[in-house]
Amino acid sequence: MGQSKGTDSNHNNTSRLEAFSDAVLAVVITIMVLALGPPRGASLGDLEPLIPKLLVYILSFTFLGIYWNNHRKLFSATRSISGAVTWANLHLLFWLSLIPAITAWVGEHPRAAWPAAIYGIVAIMSAIAYSPILTKAIIHADKGSRVAKALGPDLKGRISILLYLAAIVIAFVNPLFSYVFYVLVAAIWFIPDRRL
Amino acid sequence: MGQSKGTDSNHNNTSRLEAFSDAVLAVVITIMVLALGPPRGASLGDLEPLIPKLLVYILSFTFLGIYWNNHRKLFSATRSISGAVTWANLHLLFWLSLIPAITAWVGEHPRAAWPAAIYGIVAIMSAIAYSPILTKAIIHADKGSRVAKALGPDLKGRISILLYLAAIVIAFVNPLFSYVFYVLVAAIWFIPDRRL
Amino acid sequence: MGQSKGTDSNHNNTSRLEAFSDAVLAVVITIMVLALGPPRGASLGDLEPLIPKLLVYILSFTFLGIYWNNHRKLFSATRSISGAVTWANLHLLFWLSLIPAITAWVGEHPRAAWPAAIYGIVAIMSAIAYSPILTKAIIHADKGSRVAKALGPDLKGRISILLYLAAIVIAFVNPLFSYVFYVLVAAIWFIPDRRL
Amino acid sequence: MGQSKGTDSNHNNTSRLEAFSDAVLAVVITIMVLALGPPRGASLGDLEPLIPKLLVYILSFTFLGIYWNNHRKLFSATRSISGAVTWANLHLLFWLSLIPAITAWVGEHPRAAWPAAIYGIVAIMSAIAYSPILTKAIIHADKGSRVAKALGPDLKGRISILLYLAAIVIAFVNPLFSYVFYVLVAAIWFIPDRRL
Repeated sequence: MGQSKGTDSNHNNTSRLEAFSDAVLAVVITIMVLALGPPRGASLGDLEPLIPKLLVYILSFTFLGIYWNNHRKLFSATRSISGAVTWANLHLLFWLSLIPAITAWVGEHPRAAWPAAIYGIVAIMSAIAYSPILTKAIIHADKGSRVAKALGPDLKGRISILLYLAAIVIAFVNPLFSYVFYVLVAAIWFIPDRRL
Repeated sequence: MGQSKGTDSNHNNTSRLEAFSDAVLAVVITIMVLALGPPRGASLGDLEPLIPKLLVYILSFTFLGIYWNNHRKLFSATRSISGAVTWANLHLLFWLSLIPAITAWVGEHPRAAWPAAIYGIVAIMSAIAYSPILTKAIIHADKGSRVAKALGPDLKGRISILLYLAAIVIAFVNPLFSYVFYVLVAAIWFIPDRRL
Repeated sequence: MGQSKGTDSNHNNTSRLEAFSDAVLAVVITIMVLALGPPRGASLGDLEPLIPKLLVYILSFTFLGIYWNNHRKLFSATRSISGAVTWANLHLLFWLSLIPAITAWVGEHPRAAWPAAIYGIVAIMSAIAYSPILTKAIIHADKGSRVAKALGPDLKGRISILLYLAAIVIAFVNPLFSYVFYVLVAAIWFIPDRRL
Repeated sequence: MGQSKGTDSNHNNTSRLEAFSDAVLAVVITIMVLALGPPRGASLGDLEPLIPKLLVYILSFTFLGIYWNNHRKLFSATRSISGAVTWANLHLLFWLSLIPAITAWVGEHPRAAWPAAIYGIVAIMSAIAYSPILTKAIIHADKGSRVAKALGPDLKGRISILLYLAAIVIAFVNPLFSYVFYVLVAAIWFIPDRRL
């Protein structure tokens, strides 16, 4: 921060946007654990109802970890932001903030269609909020930057949305298949993005 | 931060105040989602009682997003702070910290007069805590700065308070009208503040 | 942070200790609001049981605000830290992390002796954790610094502990008097500390 | 941060990874207090069921404090990171995020075998996630750095894992012995690590 303040307020904007996003994502990723709750009794069998909750917790934790990681890389290549970037970022954080609620619902009804489908809807809305909405706002605000050069067509983002759509449809056949698709999307994103 | 420490402790004060405010606002904006809770059952119909809760969650999320955004811009133009600024800032955070509690209450009683009215009272107290209280404290501490020059009469802040007052009164006629006013205030603040 | 990394790791230590403390204090000060809970019904009368909870929330919010403010000033004058400072700081955060639990207890039993007394015990332990434990660790780690010069005998800290002791004793006569003492301590700390 | 942005994006990566980890650890260490809950009544006797909860809270607080402190020292010696470091770090945060859930379970069943044993399993997984997984990823990403030179064989880490294993086995004899082992591991880590 130091000397840049006053002479380069745009930089300062970026650092607070990053700090706030980090804090929101940290709270979101952590309060999900409240939905695990402690088991009722003290025996090993009391852990059994926690297994689906724990599995979907791992899924959502990975999902949020991917967003944090992509967000970090995106803004490390961003030099200046606008009001539109700020609001596009808050819009992304809004959808991600719903993850703990939907995770708790899915954890309680792991074999039901609607929780699996709505998990996919939140995932699609988050994906769209990230790309194209947030990335386009950044490119518009920060012309000629590394972001504009680095981000070509967002292949992974488009495949993710298609897989999420498939997962939503298949939830009404067998919701367990939906979770296979969600895991698949997470797996795609583990492959590091070499563009940034 | 680096070299400025020791030679420019005022700057350092600003960055911790900003970091703490970011963290408080991040927790406030995120723990609201705990009030959504997971739906009782796994059918689509079980989501119905969540609709008013989700709508007021969106309203409060936007409300807090606006405060974060304004706070960020205000302090990016602030170079030195005083004890009065610190306390004026904590006073603002206090009122904003009540948002999750009032949001949960409103979400459970979306058609009741008192929750709608008290939502407006918390909104007015937050607005006053921001402007004039916090902005005046900053101008007093940081004379000749960009903030002092940039902030003229706070038209938007005054209109907001008037609309909040109207919303409180109208809550006892029909609380749904109050929420129309709260949305209206949020819409006003979406128009970016060109002064900073 | 920038260039100092590697050449001045002590400075870097300070900034993460400050960031972590900010985040812990932000969560502590904010999750207290969960104890307020939403009122049962939607009428004005349903707010009545919230009044003592809200009053003790204001007290604890102020209490934590004072610690954050003093902590900020203390570390803005600190240039290098040691393992002992780190642990003295975690020890302080431990006692402060109990504030939401004791605040919730006091809010439910505002006229009972033990909650009022144990509030005082947590307050005393926090006060001792701050001064002398944390301040002495800093002075030891950062000899010749502004902190060592600035901190003389800690008059306010000593008076606070005496007032807390009095509040604990008087809780068994009338717990409402205890809260008068707690407010008095908060009032003392509003007077800015000119030493740093 | 200032000038390094753009020319040294690796450094920037480190600071957001540290900020995010600080925020996650701060939330994890603080939401544990929600499991303490307020006592049922207002008498001293109502505090009795809180004693085991408070003791295991102190244990987990110390446990997380040690991780935060080691994490801080590890990354203060780290200059550049890779995708593998990011994911190794998220993997560590995942295991640490389970601490509040297992702490709540143990606090409710302090004399039961399974909670004590599973506390040990979470502790082992956290220990392995830290060393060797995270430390190896850092050494691989940051060759020739101070970390690579400083970290020799991780004696303390290995002893901890052995003690955790012993604690898990002994939980089925007498779970109280397990907690003695957990306290012992914490005591070992209080001895400062002179390698970094």
